[in-house]
Order: sequence, then structure tokens, then C-alpha cells
Amino acid sequence: MYNYADDSLMLHTDLYQINMGETYWNDGIHEQTAVFDVYFRSMPFDGGYAVFAGLERVINYVKGFKFSETDMEYLKTLGYQDDYLAYLKDLRFTGNIRSMQEGEICFNNEPLLRIEAPLIQAQLLETAILNIVNFQVLIATKASRIKQVVGDEIVMEFGTRRAQEMDAAIWGTRAAYIAGFDSTSNVRAGKIFGIPVSGTHAHAMVQAYDDEYIAFKKYAERHKNCVFLVDTFHTLKSGVPNAIRVAQELGDKINFVGIRLDSGDLAYLSKEARRMLDEAGFPDAKIFASNDLDEETITNLKLQGAKITAWGIGTKLITAFDQPALGAVYKLVAIENKAGQLEDRIKISNNAEKVTTPGKKNVYRIINNQTKKSEGDYITLDFEDPAKEKPLKMFHPIHTYKQKWINDFTAKDLHADIFVDGKLVYDVPTLEQSREYLKENLALLWEETTRYLNPEEYPVDLSTLCWEKKNQEIYEVSKKVKEVK
Amino acid sequence: MYNYADDSLMLHTDLYQINMGETYWNDGIHEQTAVFDVYFRSMPFDGGYAVFAGLERVINYVKGFKFSETDMEYLKTLGYQDDYLAYLKDLRFTGNIRSMQEGEICFNNEPLLRIEAPLIQAQLLETAILNIVNFQVLIATKASRIKQVVGDEIVMEFGTRRAQEMDAAIWGTRAAYIAGFDSTSNVRAGKIFGIPVSGTHAHAMVQAYDDEYIAFKKYAERHKNCVFLVDTFHTLKSGVPNAIRVAQELGDKINFVGIRLDSGDLAYLSKEARRMLDEAGFPDAKIFASNDLDEETITNLKLQGAKITAWGIGTKLITAFDQPALGAVYKLVAIENKAGQLEDRIKISNNAEKVTTPGKKNVYRIINNQTKKSEGDYITLDFEDPAKEKPLKMFHPIHTYKQKWINDFTAKDLHADIFVDGKLVYDVPTLEQSREYLKENLALLWEETTRYLNPEEYPVDLSTLCWEKKNQEIYEVSKKVKEVK
Repeated sequence: MYNYADDSLMLHTDLYQINMGETYWNDGIHEQTAVFDVYFRSMPFDGGYAVFAGLERVINYVKGFKFSETDMEYLKTLGYQDDYLAYLKDLRFTGNIRSMQEGEICFNNEPLLRIEAPLIQAQLLETAILNIVNFQVLIATKASRIKQVVGDEIVMEFGTRRAQEMDAAIWGTRAAYIAGFDSTSNVRAGKIFGIPVSGTHAHAMVQAYDDEYIAFKKYAERHKNCVFLVDTFHTLKSGVPNAIRVAQELGDKINFVGIRLDSGDLAYLSKEARRMLDEAGFPDAKIFASNDLDEETITNLKLQGAKITAWGIGTKLITAFDQPALGAVYKLVAIENKAGQLEDRIKISNNAEKVTTPGKKNVYRIINNQTKKSEGDYITLDFEDPAKEKPLKMFHPIHTYKQKWINDFTAKDLHADIFVDGKLVYDVPTLEQSREYLKENLALLWEETTRYLNPEEYPVDLSTLCWEKKNQEIYEVSKKVKEVK
Repeated sequence: MYNYADDSLMLHTDLYQINMGETYWNDGIHEQTAVFDVYFRSMPFDGGYAVFAGLERVINYVKGFKFSETDMEYLKTLGYQDDYLAYLKDLRFTGNIRSMQEGEICFNNEPLLRIEAPLIQAQLLETAILNIVNFQVLIATKASRIKQVVGDEIVMEFGTRRAQEMDAAIWGTRAAYIAGFDSTSNVRAGKIFGIPVSGTHAHAMVQAYDDEYIAFKKYAERHKNCVFLVDTFHTLKSGVPNAIRVAQELGDKINFVGIRLDSGDLAYLSKEARRMLDEAGFPDAKIFASNDLDEETITNLKLQGAKITAWGIGTKLITAFDQPALGAVYKLVAIENKAGQLEDRIKISNNAEKVTTPGKKNVYRIINNQTKKSEGDYITLDFEDPAKEKPLKMFHPIHTYKQKWINDFTAKDLHADIFVDGKLVYDVPTLEQSREYLKENLALLWEETTRYLNPEEYPVDLSTLCWEKKNQEIYEVSKKVKEVK
């Protein structure tokens, strides 16, 4: 781009990371080990669950952690001094990253990833990791919500033209595929990720011929598996009749798959089109529909008895239209002191939900062995092992009276080691594996959690030790603040 | 990406474009000249105006119009036949593109770009052009709305971590800069586009030291122009006093620029912080604020007398949070027949606003020579010259009783030639020039059009000929539909 042969993504970060790096470097604390948690504070779309995605992109980013020549030249123009720049030039990632797998079900206030690295490296990674994870989790979650209401019917991602630029189209459709979408219209996503591609023709083709019947026929001459878009002039008076006419005339010469509706009242039109197709002897012809669909409109169309069997989803998915940003944050929870020991760190805020949970932590899913359903997620300090606590006490970290004891459970560590001492130790699963993984994991949830509207809150609890430590830290900081004159 | 050394953006398109191309090619009409208009149907954010941006990215895309080796290999796996693939392999762009300049003020239902090219080429460009233009127009427009309420105060783009992936961060901040933003936090955007970069430090730095006073001091040791983030522990009891203490102790050794508020009640905190800074002898210290700001919250903060002098804008801008997609479309308006003449094309819809305006057209801004304000935009057929019509009749294309005659005006052609016969003939302006251009153009609008809430509708009219032709076409298609079956 813009003639930088060595364009790198290392500068895809906020300036303040490089500023802070200089302070740390200047003060000699830049290589103290720091632990950062990545998490979001509230559930996207007011949903009951979210879907983790983006890890592969994060891995590639970390693998490319290296300033290029022109990066360094640019930084010099910003006034950074040579000694610091010389240090940055040779910087490589040497830390540890633990993360959820793609397709993992995740919730607010639990660590999706844990970065444990020399302070300056961890800071330099912050912006890109958040950017990647915020977007893919958002889209995977939105796609999963849509997939839930679509069930086993076909659902296709169609949103490239409305995506927020090219990366969003590509990575968004990948996230949607993990969440259970069947295909994408984006050909490059097909090439890069191996996602099945789908698409038929547009209104322009019908307009080009200015005769819908001829246009359909020309299209069918060269294409098998025809789906005709029927709303260029008039859906029921022109589009559907012409589709039927071509299907009847060409018979076995084409495989007439069905029609696509892209405007108007989809409930009414699909029922009428269904009747016409059935009467013409095409009971197996599918009816595709698109036009600003999402989980809510699909649910309503189904309630109205719409005869739609395949769904094309564009804008509402690829931009996460009803909530286009996930607010995942990257918070320091511990840092090595001069004696080489990790000390916990907290950030206080007037907004109670913005107070961080200090300490190096892990997160487990507590699965009830009897019901095979999840009882909740359980965040522990690094040295704790919930499997050894029987019964395990689980309680709401704010409304602590909500508590339960679990006896017969399996504690599943939700994190895998991704990088250890800077080395990639993780085998990246295929997209198919991540899809399958999500499907299996969804079965652990009650439908009260997975329904898209007004779901029950899923428990994300802190271990007793973790909870006590957090409250102790809050108390200590508050005391210190009081003492400041 | 993913080990394709020759990764190209040619496949950043919808599959149906390649399918339709095959139909056209198979039928021998693929090189008939087609004319497509790019336009959006309704104003983003219910605003009174929008800002055009994205042209430079479109130009680069068109310059790179060429399938790569691996693109061809992938297309072969999709079942396209060798004869068609052989044709695609050698395809280059040979058409004409006319477009608005970046920084042009634009409105709904007027052509932003006009693509006139062999049918297959025009189709292959559709998806990428829409993707690029939809996003940059959206963000430039949102940024301009924010800039209007900020006035001459500093306004900074801070949104990378919440952007919809990396391209959105980069191209979004570029669009915001055209719209009048002063800087970005994204370092790569600074490197690539030459946009000024800004940023100070994060909460993590204060946490790392666990002592706010020491953290500020360490930061100030190495950085001139210090802005201290004051809300890590307690804004008024800890953050502001520590900032003042460091500023007083280091005095002339640093240039104490000010403080940044990132949470809590920004109106109250900024007023209190202002008082404390003034009393401490820093009346010139600036107060920066950030935290989900947009044109509405800024307006409200100003009404409440907030003492904020610099604004950091993240999520709400970079995702266009309140309307994260612009629905620009790419519609066939004319196509060459076998006799080599352009024939008009229309697309009818039950939704009246979805009916296209047929014909190869231009768009002019009618500027009143007396008031120096714009009377509206005026769409003509290609051969019309509004400058020669005095008086010029302007009327609303739906509510035709709204009409006026203008005598003393200048008709400014809103399009420039960008590509002619496949050759780039346009000098791309610098970003500074596009910023300046927007500023000049905004002066042509009445404030009734530019206010962000409930603006007056700006007239986008059709010439009498254009209007008559559209109605004639609607009539003819409707007649044809009636005749079907």
C-alpha cells in the first residue's frame, strides 16, 4: 500500500503504546513481566452468550511482530530518540499467550486471552489484539444468533458491499462460518479460507437483457443449479412466472434450484411464490430470501408462515448493525516487581463494572456430570485447581447471596497455551473443526441462555480467593486515594 | 495473507458478478458498453448532507484490475470453464469513470460515481467500489457532523481498537481527516497517509507504577508536551492533584499541556478540574475528554458548560455507531444495443424510492450568484447543459408542486473525469486539499442544511427531460408486466 514494499502491521497500534514503551524503556522496567487480560464487560446484543473468534488472526499478528525499515524511519520522524529506536528495531515477541479456542462460547467479564510478556511487548500488542478480537467475536456472536433461529435451513453471508471496508468483509465472513453459516458470496474469502461460495445473478443481468424471460434463459444456458432473482420488474406477475417458464422449457437441461426474493413483503411473496411453484410442478424448488434480514426479522417471517428455505444475510450481520462494536478491553492485572515477583494490579472506577479483577487468572467451565449442562464459568487465581474442590462453591461476584454448591462436575480449562516464551505451541484448528467445536459447546447451554431475546444471565463467578483478593485491593486503593491530599 | 504471494483484490467481489460475466461472455454481450450509477437512497444519520470520500482507494483498486495466477487457479476449482477463464485472465479495465472529488458534499439519489465500461468489467468492479465508497462516505459524514459541533476545538480520532478490523481503522481515520479531524492515534495511518498522530499514555502505565505521582513523573522525564490521564484511581482526589504536582515540580522542564478525562461525569469533572488547574496557576492547561463521544454528547456537554477543549472520538465515529452501514447501490442505467447505441434501463420496485433513474446522466450544483449559496443539485441527461437554461426550472421529483426558477446561477459539474478509456486522467489531490475543498463547499450550504438534528431537506432535482424519461420508462415497464402471462 502506498508504495511501502515493507509495509508491516506493527504500526497498527495507538501512538500512546509507543510513548509508554519509551517511558518504561527509559526507566528500565520495560522487560518486567506483565500480565494483561482481554475481556468485554457486557454481553453483545443483550444476548445470553457470545462466540470467541479471531485467534488465528492474532497468532499471525504476533508471528509478524517486528518493525520494518520504513516503520523505523517513520518513528524517527515522530521525534523518538535513537537509543529507544535501536531497542525497538530488534524487538521480537518472547512472551506467553493463553487463549480460548475459536468457536468457544464466552461471556462478559472473563478473560478471553491472557498475555504474559515483557511489559513493552504486551503494550505494543494491545491495540491490534483488541481490534481483531472485538470484531470477530462480535460477528461470530451475531452470526450464531441468526443461525439459532434459522436452524437447519441454508444461511448465506452476502454482506461484502456493506461491510466496513475489505478486512471486515473477509474476517467477518470467516467468523460467520465458524458460527455455522453455510457459505459466503465473497470470492476472495472462498479462496483464502476455503469457505464455500454462493451466488446467482443480480438485477443488472435482467436489466441488461431488458427481458426477464430471455435473461433467465441465457443464464440457464451456461449455469447449472439455477436460482433466478425474480423481483426486477414484478415478483409475482413477471419474475416467478418467467422462472417457471424457463424451468419448464429447459427441464432436465438445467437443475432448477429455485428463486430468490430481494424486496417487498417476503412473507406474502414467499407464500404466493410457493403456491405457484407447487402448482407448476416444482415442489422441491427452494425459495431464497434476502433484504436486511437478521434474527428478529427471520423469527417474524417464520411466525407468519413465510415459505423461505434459504436465507441470505448481508448488512445486519456483517456490520453487527444493532451493536456495531464490542467493547473488549486489555487490562493490566499483574506486574513483576524488582524482586522478580508478580504483584497484582487493579484499576478502580466510579462505574463498578469498570473495576478490574486483579491477578494472574484462569477460567474454567463447570460442567455438571449428571445433566451434561454447564453450571457456569469459574475464574480462579493461577495456582488454584477447581477440580480439587468438591463441593465447589459458586457465587455471584456482586450479588453474593446467589450461591450454589456443585459436587459432581468436570472443570474444563477454557484456555489453551498458544505462545510459550515467544514460540507458537498451538496447532491452529481448521475452520471446520472450530465450527464443530462451537456446535458441541452450544449443547452445554440451556435454551434459556441461548434464546436471542431476554436470555437468562449465565453465571461467571470468581473463586472465593479471587473474590477476596479483589475486594482487598479495592480497599487498599481506596485507602490510598483518601490519603492523597 | 495465507501464503499467496500473488494475493490480489480482484476476487474481493461477489460470486454472482463472475457468474453473470460468464453469461454475458457466453452470449457475446460482455463487451457492450454499460453505464452504472453509484448512489445511496437515504441520508445517513438522518442528516442534511453527506461527505464524499473513497475515490483514491477506488482508483487504486481499478489500477490493480487483473486476476492473479492463484485467482485463476481458484476460479477453476469453482467449475468455470477454460474458455471463459482464458478471457478473464487477460482482462484489464478499459472503461470510463467519472466521480465526485473527495471532500465533495453529496446527497441521496444523485450519482456519486458513473462507471461506463464493457458490461463484464463494470460488473466485476461493483462490489469493491460499493464496499469502499459505502464505508468512507459513512465515516467522512459522521466525522463532519462531529466536526460541526466541535468547531475550532481540537478533535482526534481514537477508535482503532473498536474499528471493524484493520482496514476500517485505516480508511476510516483517513475519511475523518478529510472531514476536518486534526489527528489520529493510529500510527500506521500516520505513516501511510501523513495524518498527524496523537496520544499520551494509558491507565496501564499508572497501574504499572502503582503510584500515580511517580508514573506521571516518569512519563514527563522523557516526554515533552505532557497530557496526563487522570482517572486511573480517582480523578479529582488523585489524578488532577498528581498532575498539578508534577507540573509544578518540573516546571519549565516539561511543557505541561493538560489532562485527559476518560470516565465519569465529564461535565462535572471538567469543571472541577478546570477550577483546580486555574487555582494552581495553569489557566492554559487543556482538558482532553474521551468516552463514547459523538455529536450529540458533545453538544450536551457544551450546553452543560463542560470545560473541555479537546475531544477524543473513538467507537461512535469509527463504526458509525448509530448507523453502521450506508446503503449505496450500483445500478445499470443504460446499455449499448447491438446497433451500438445506448439504451436506457430502469429497475422498478414496489418501494417507490427503489425505482432507478434511467439514462447516462450528470449532476450539477446550482449556486446562486447573489447569495453564494447552493439552490440544490440538478441531475441532467448527458447531453444537457443547465448553464444554457436561464431561467432554470427546479422542481422536486416526487412532490412536483415544489418548484422554483433560478436566473443568476453557476452550474458546477460535480463529476470529474477519472479514467478515460482505461487510463487514469485525474490528479489525485492531497488529503490537505480535500479537507480544504470540503471546508469551502460547506460554506455553500445554509445552516438549516448542516445542523445535525432535523435538518431541512436539500433539493436534489431531475431536469425536466430526465424526469419525463424516467416516467416514460416506468409506464413502459408497467405495461409490459401487465402483458406477461
